Amino acid sequence: MTRGISHVGVAVPSIDAAIGAYARLGFVLVHREELPERAVRVAFLALGADRVELLEPTGEGPVARFLARRGPGLHHLALRSDAVAADLARFEADGGIAIDKAPRPGAEGCAVAFLDPASTAGVLVELVEAVTR
Amino acid sequence: MTRGISHVGVAVPSIDAAIGAYARLGFVLVHREELPERAVRVAFLALGADRVELLEPTGEGPVARFLARRGPGLHHLALRSDAVAADLARFEADGGIAIDKAPRPGAEGCAVAFLDPASTAGVLVELVEAVTR
Repeated sequence: MTRGISHVGVAVPSIDAAIGAYARLGFVLVHREELPERAVRVAFLALGADRVELLEPTGEGPVARFLARRGPGLHHLALRSDAVAADLARFEADGGIAIDKAPRPGAEGCAVAFLDPASTAGVLVELVEAVTR
Repeated sequence: MTRGISHVGVAVPSIDAAIGAYARLGFVLVHREELPERAVRVAFLALGADRVELLEPTGEGPVARFLARRGPGLHHLALRSDAVAADLARFEADGGIAIDKAPRPGAEGCAVAFLDPASTAGVLVELVEAVTR
């Protein structure tokens, strides 16, 4: 089951340059991480219980392509799931199309899966499950 | 002060066509409203305590232009504020640029103000204050 919004992903050319803009809105930096297999580094910023994830490309990859095509801005909507594999199966059984056919490792050690925007009214949706290790 | 994410705005050509896609993700419809002065009708969908706002143009206006230019997808990020006028003044004093120089009426009787994406790392940010009438 999906439980709510985990975070909102924002593609930026530079995390360091963007952090100041978000600080002005009340966001505070809570976590940074590099995901080499996605050619991206990320920073999570919190505002109360809610979070934004800034994504900066480190090389050729989906975030670099997004920035080249559309410029900086809202990139994806991540939903908290308590079981990504089961939610993915239910989504596909209901006629939805997933980009990731099985959960894979994401930031903060979570299991994640992205859904095809064609099945979600144009929005790149990520399912995120916190994994206890 | 901003307190968290109020909702994530998604531009769609048809709310009725998009509601099904979001229902598949667990969202339920909680409110519909038409905002003639913005040439848009909106629908709020809830997932737990979090919300998405679908925006469908009813004529020429910013949402119709967004759809024509970029297609359906993530449109804006709305932050809960307990005092939009004060937050707007602080944002501008800190060097930010606002689209709305003063709060104006938004959906659900809220006072709202949009900020210039040039000041927010490319994201159209809306400040939203619940107004007791």
